[in-house]
Amino acid sequence: MTPDEFREAGHLLIDWIADFRTSIEERPVLAQVVPGEVRAGFPSGPPERLATVDELIAQLDTVVLPGVTQVQHPMHFGWFPANASLASVLGDLVSTGIGSLGITWQSSPALTEVEEVVCEWMRELCGLSPAWRGVIQDTASTACLVAMLCARERASDFSQNRGGLQGEEHPLVVYASPQCHSSVPKAVLLAGFGIDNLRHVDVDPVTYALDPSALRAAMAADAAAGRRPAAVILGIGTTGTTAFDPIAACVEIAQEYGAWVHVDAAMAGAAMLLPEMRHLFDGIEGADSISWNPHKWMGTALDCSMYLTRDPEHLIRVMSTNPSYLRSAADGQVTQYKDWGIQLGRRFRALKLWFHLELDGVDAIRARLRRDLDNARWFADQVASEPGWRVLAPVPLQTVCIRHEPPGLDGDALDGHTLAWLDRINSSGAAFMSGSMLDGRWMVRVSVGVESTERRHVEALWRMIRDAASVAAGETAPA
Amino acid sequence: MTPDEFREAGHLLIDWIADFRTSIEERPVLAQVVPGEVRAGFPSGPPERLATVDELIAQLDTVVLPGVTQVQHPMHFGWFPANASLASVLGDLVSTGIGSLGITWQSSPALTEVEEVVCEWMRELCGLSPAWRGVIQDTASTACLVAMLCARERASDFSQNRGGLQGEEHPLVVYASPQCHSSVPKAVLLAGFGIDNLRHVDVDPVTYALDPSALRAAMAADAAAGRRPAAVILGIGTTGTTAFDPIAACVEIAQEYGAWVHVDAAMAGAAMLLPEMRHLFDGIEGADSISWNPHKWMGTALDCSMYLTRDPEHLIRVMSTNPSYLRSAADGQVTQYKDWGIQLGRRFRALKLWFHLELDGVDAIRARLRRDLDNARWFADQVASEPGWRVLAPVPLQTVCIRHEPPGLDGDALDGHTLAWLDRINSSGAAFMSGSMLDGRWMVRVSVGVESTERRHVEALWRMIRDAASVAAGETAPA
Repeated sequence: MTPDEFREAGHLLIDWIADFRTSIEERPVLAQVVPGEVRAGFPSGPPERLATVDELIAQLDTVVLPGVTQVQHPMHFGWFPANASLASVLGDLVSTGIGSLGITWQSSPALTEVEEVVCEWMRELCGLSPAWRGVIQDTASTACLVAMLCARERASDFSQNRGGLQGEEHPLVVYASPQCHSSVPKAVLLAGFGIDNLRHVDVDPVTYALDPSALRAAMAADAAAGRRPAAVILGIGTTGTTAFDPIAACVEIAQEYGAWVHVDAAMAGAAMLLPEMRHLFDGIEGADSISWNPHKWMGTALDCSMYLTRDPEHLIRVMSTNPSYLRSAADGQVTQYKDWGIQLGRRFRALKLWFHLELDGVDAIRARLRRDLDNARWFADQVASEPGWRVLAPVPLQTVCIRHEPPGLDGDALDGHTLAWLDRINSSGAAFMSGSMLDGRWMVRVSVGVESTERRHVEALWRMIRDAASVAAGETAPA
Repeated sequence: MTPDEFREAGHLLIDWIADFRTSIEERPVLAQVVPGEVRAGFPSGPPERLATVDELIAQLDTVVLPGVTQVQHPMHFGWFPANASLASVLGDLVSTGIGSLGITWQSSPALTEVEEVVCEWMRELCGLSPAWRGVIQDTASTACLVAMLCARERASDFSQNRGGLQGEEHPLVVYASPQCHSSVPKAVLLAGFGIDNLRHVDVDPVTYALDPSALRAAMAADAAAGRRPAAVILGIGTTGTTAFDPIAACVEIAQEYGAWVHVDAAMAGAAMLLPEMRHLFDGIEGADSISWNPHKWMGTALDCSMYLTRDPEHLIRVMSTNPSYLRSAADGQVTQYKDWGIQLGRRFRALKLWFHLELDGVDAIRARLRRDLDNARWFADQVASEPGWRVLAPVPLQTVCIRHEPPGLDGDALDGHTLAWLDRINSSGAAFMSGSMLDGRWMVRVSVGVESTERRHVEALWRMIRDAASVAAGETAPA
């Protein structure tokens, strides 16, 4: 494709995206397709002739878009807000269009240095001290794995430079709450610790936050048995209920054992941008690493995960390689982000964050986050004051965990009722929320925070929820 | 940013990218900036007022672009071709613009199923049997780590479900050639094997390909000592010289020990698209996993790495998580790519590969690869027939390893000469090549294959090289 062909097709696609974003509210939230339906809309073999952009646009309209669950839809309340602000879409376009190659500083000094700049801006906006250095990872899953690898190597005095974890006589142990995200046990297992060496520490039954006394007891028991407490992963805004594990207390205990503290604030980290919410993060300066995703609530397009470390030298020692074909005269004077993570080749991700901050502006982003917090509190108040309804956990942020508990329904029957009214709404396409387990029973998570979600959408959701629960209760009522 | 603001700014940026791509030949290849220069062009703190798109474009022009090493430049012969075809740029724009969230099938059925479709197309185009299933990873570094985690868990009978690698009595050992990419030892170390359990197996002194008899001897010695051969990583088109480790012979040996065979064809894999080159990959059906990067020579914009497995069930068992908040009624009927790699959140990467294949077309991609092979052979012929010049390794693909060896220069003096003429060209910005070590001495790698590189560019490079070497030889000649 020549630059002039790109110009023509690019204008068409920019307009197509603008039209799509304008019309998003007319679409179902949950994709209304059955398994295999999208695949069946494509030929089974590779294309044998050139397509036109118009043909691809038609295929996008008729086959692809109906198969996309619309997380940019104002009635999307599922999983977490996965905003992709249009300003960041443009920054990402520039990144891909430049076609920069991020392998070393020399291969793209701007890619490296703009990333340093925006990470520094973000550190300041989050109210973190200059002791932290940042890098953009793809996701919090990867960031957690990076943190566990750093913890493993610190606790084992760089076993990777010997026999690895193989043959270590005193097993390294990792601690997290049972409310931690699924990426946490995944990272622990991939890093080679083994499931036997992952402790799920008890949480407070009301706040669902990790109980520091339980952490202390677990670490003491392991140490007494000859095992080595290596890492604590704290959930700051856990996935299920946005609980905040108590950072300061846990850091103090972890430090007694020299254990690494990783703060997983994937969704909630955006709240650090709000001075009035910053107290929720008290103690975070004592952690060893932090990850949070601007690609969630804040709204920089996926993938953009901030990873902050207090000890870049340690990170570099864990990750570095220095083959002859990547050396240059600038080595030693510059940041080599290849040694700050798993991948060698990196995209110019800083551009989408830069565009987002410059074109949307920090003030507007903060105002939107505050709007979402207000909407969540309003919604929680409605639910709490409605007979038969419960808010199941504190609401420190924008996620409200609810259940409809009609008289006489409990146990599996209650689960059936919850899933019935949830499915009634989700399958209709009118709105989407996630079901999740809490204390062994299904509940519904209402995660507020899509860029386009205003109060009227939350009000409509609450009407929809009461109607659906009422219908479902009628259907499941004892005969 | 509203859709209408996006429309207006998007048109400006599409034109800006088209203009940039048109004018790329007028720019220096290697960025002519010193460390810190780009960073100094940005304010130290976050923006306090809204910027306009025009202001960001001015900043791109004056600060960012001068700091980008132009790997899309026709005189870029460094590292590897890192093509970002404009067709794939548009596909990526659509991906970001849709703002799809790839965490489960339900969160974006189209993201999952279009990825299945294009991976199946790519499998067919590469002449691989239907026994392979594909997934798009970000980079070959990640793909290699995924392969090593699969190998570790197969060889240890899922130690991650027990104590991990900790306390395993019989260490697992990995084998690779000393010519392997730096991501190989990195993956082995991150997976916890330890450097003591990575064997660098001898290569043939002429072809630089792994010597199967040395592999057999190393595995036998480890097995006799009570260690367990767990994995062999074969470089197919190694970074230094594009050597091809002998797949069929190595697979046979590995299978005797039940060791995993991972084929790292990051750059060279594109040659599988050419039937006449396919013999270089003979035996590949016996491997356990393959990775290669359409984001290199083939030209789908970074990041797009194909990972192929013969045993998706094993991959899923290593990687899977199934928390309540990600369950849906479709589970069991659909592919959950979150369980095919490290990340939970995934971009809609299939779109850029789909656009690339549809708008550029397989025939044109193949013709371009053949052009590059011809250009590399022509260049190698010129060097080989010029007195004082040597081609240091076979040229099976598009990379030519050369050295100028004037009479009387050897050892460190020869290294100094090589680096002097290389630096003279690179620092001028007129062209860029990578220096690399071979047999302990510096050489220059000429990696042909940028989308815009025609014969005339290779001819110009050869003139430039002879001139630079002549000047450097004059400066370094004994007095």
